[in-house]
Amino acid sequence: MRTVAVELAHAPYQIQIASGLLKDASLIAACLPQARVAIVTNQTVAALYLEDLQQALESSGIRTLRIVLPDGEQYKNWETLNQILDALLEHRCERKTTLIALGGGVVGDMTGFAAAIYQRGMPFIQVPTTLLAQVDSSVGGKTAINHPLGKNMIGAFYQPRLVLADLDTLQTLPAREYSAGLAEVIKYGLIDDLPFFEWLERNMAALMRRDMEALAYAVERSCQNKARIVAADEREEGVRALLNLGHTFGHAIEAGLGYGVWLHGEAIAAGMVLAAKASALLGKLRADEVARIELLLQRADLPTTAPELGFARWMELMAQDKKVLDGRIRFVLMDCLGQSELAYLDEAQLRELLH
Amino acid sequence: MRTVAVELAHAPYQIQIASGLLKDASLIAACLPQARVAIVTNQTVAALYLEDLQQALESSGIRTLRIVLPDGEQYKNWETLNQILDALLEHRCERKTTLIALGGGVVGDMTGFAAAIYQRGMPFIQVPTTLLAQVDSSVGGKTAINHPLGKNMIGAFYQPRLVLADLDTLQTLPAREYSAGLAEVIKYGLIDDLPFFEWLERNMAALMRRDMEALAYAVERSCQNKARIVAADEREEGVRALLNLGHTFGHAIEAGLGYGVWLHGEAIAAGMVLAAKASALLGKLRADEVARIELLLQRADLPTTAPELGFARWMELMAQDKKVLDGRIRFVLMDCLGQSELAYLDEAQLRELLH
Repeated sequence: MRTVAVELAHAPYQIQIASGLLKDASLIAACLPQARVAIVTNQTVAALYLEDLQQALESSGIRTLRIVLPDGEQYKNWETLNQILDALLEHRCERKTTLIALGGGVVGDMTGFAAAIYQRGMPFIQVPTTLLAQVDSSVGGKTAINHPLGKNMIGAFYQPRLVLADLDTLQTLPAREYSAGLAEVIKYGLIDDLPFFEWLERNMAALMRRDMEALAYAVERSCQNKARIVAADEREEGVRALLNLGHTFGHAIEAGLGYGVWLHGEAIAAGMVLAAKASALLGKLRADEVARIELLLQRADLPTTAPELGFARWMELMAQDKKVLDGRIRFVLMDCLGQSELAYLDEAQLRELLH
Repeated sequence: MRTVAVELAHAPYQIQIASGLLKDASLIAACLPQARVAIVTNQTVAALYLEDLQQALESSGIRTLRIVLPDGEQYKNWETLNQILDALLEHRCERKTTLIALGGGVVGDMTGFAAAIYQRGMPFIQVPTTLLAQVDSSVGGKTAINHPLGKNMIGAFYQPRLVLADLDTLQTLPAREYSAGLAEVIKYGLIDDLPFFEWLERNMAALMRRDMEALAYAVERSCQNKARIVAADEREEGVRALLNLGHTFGHAIEAGLGYGVWLHGEAIAAGMVLAAKASALLGKLRADEVARIELLLQRADLPTTAPELGFARWMELMAQDKKVLDGRIRFVLMDCLGQSELAYLDEAQLRELLH
């Protein structure tokens, strides 16, 4: 088992990475304040893994409630959130009952947010079953739902007590979702870990075969990167903003096409290429470096060209993003290959980039 | 001006108590990260005070947005919360825009919760205009909305940056609401401040005349009591639970009759009498002490007899309360006059009390 510590002063916790974790209740049992949990998952994941997890818990004497949501980013809204809260209230779950998120980023974000606001906060545990959730969304305590006027606009910073990344679950992941997760893995290399970017260039073939050794290393290294950044800046007042590399463009793509048409990771891949091209425009990146980024994303079966949204729509969508300060749009761009930084683009530069 | 400090380690703030604070923007201006605010209030309070506050802010160069909600506890729900969030998004408020709650406990609780979850948290300021809000709900960071299955079931611990208690606003308060606020004032005497209880016995006539000197002292002393308890236990893991004296019974009354039929303070008054009688049952309080409590509440024009709900309904409503642990209902009862403590009641005792 590989363990990554998230060193938050008030609420440190561990990410455990290994095969077979779903069938072993001991790590979960050790951190429950009450022998009772509610497992939130979606229909797709329920069919694959809910039975295993529930059996493991029940046979350790832990009372479990199942809450099964519909599957898809389009359900990351008030209505589905209320399904969770209603179920908790109907079954009289208490504030020491623990909520377990079993699924991908959508399940994790909504479950974490439900835990943050149910009776003003109950404990929760992340059991991410997608690559994207294992390397990104399950770590760091960002929880949220979408609003018709913007993605992740309503939410809370709320940390899990434990993250269990069972590598076995990645073997059943559809190819498209697996690739979407690789977009966030590649992102860590571009933020500030050039050696990892180069490792990914050497090992992309193994990762695309879902080789267990390569996967374990990629998940661990990604979590280490994320944990370090989150521990330095839990509330995104500084360096944590770098985790949004590709996200201002990416969120506009997701919202512009309608949530769920492109997967989050796909939009982030195209968004990172736009960020690379913007960095080239500013003279920070050479054309061959932009090409290396595009090639690595393409080898991960990810899109590298953003859809046509029209300039006015791009601007409207990006102005809605949370990374707006006093009316200017802030981007994460690259200072050189393997090192990102905050930067602002003016309208002429954006016009050149997006046309 | 009287100042009470709320000494929270990660987010200390001050409560300012004086006349005329609404017309003075300087205290607010000093704590804004961006010269932009959204003021949330209700129709009743808007007619009385919104103009004053908005003008003071605008003439200090602060951009203001008004969000006016319907008035009443029955609107403390998802739908009204969404009105706030929708308005913030439609007007592109940013995460450094500050939300100001201008009103009583309902406005403060909902606005604070909206601030907690808008873009994962924006700054907020409490400007309480009722006695109950000034002495209780605006201090301590409990925010929430109601759910059909229970009061304040969905919410967050989220601290304001500043609390401005303008004593002038108490002069326009309807008599019934004023009395409801006195219930929470009396509560502090019963929790652990016998000298204050005795001061209230001597000064209830002045308070009922809304004498400014008496009011200023009562608000300050109440806030000191609340601030001390909250600073010792922000998340209600221990001593803070004592602030719920009368609340397990009171919440059942409010929910049992339908939110808004009895005011919160009225339900708490009747709930504190039940707590006193339960304490007498346990041999902790003498009959003459129970009578002193009833008399003081009556002199504040508060109800001291709970409505008939029927035993089964009482039990059902109380089991839904957040103060349930492993299926047992926890109460705040009195160890002696002027000192409360946590205690459990068994079904036979509850039957005797509630029949």
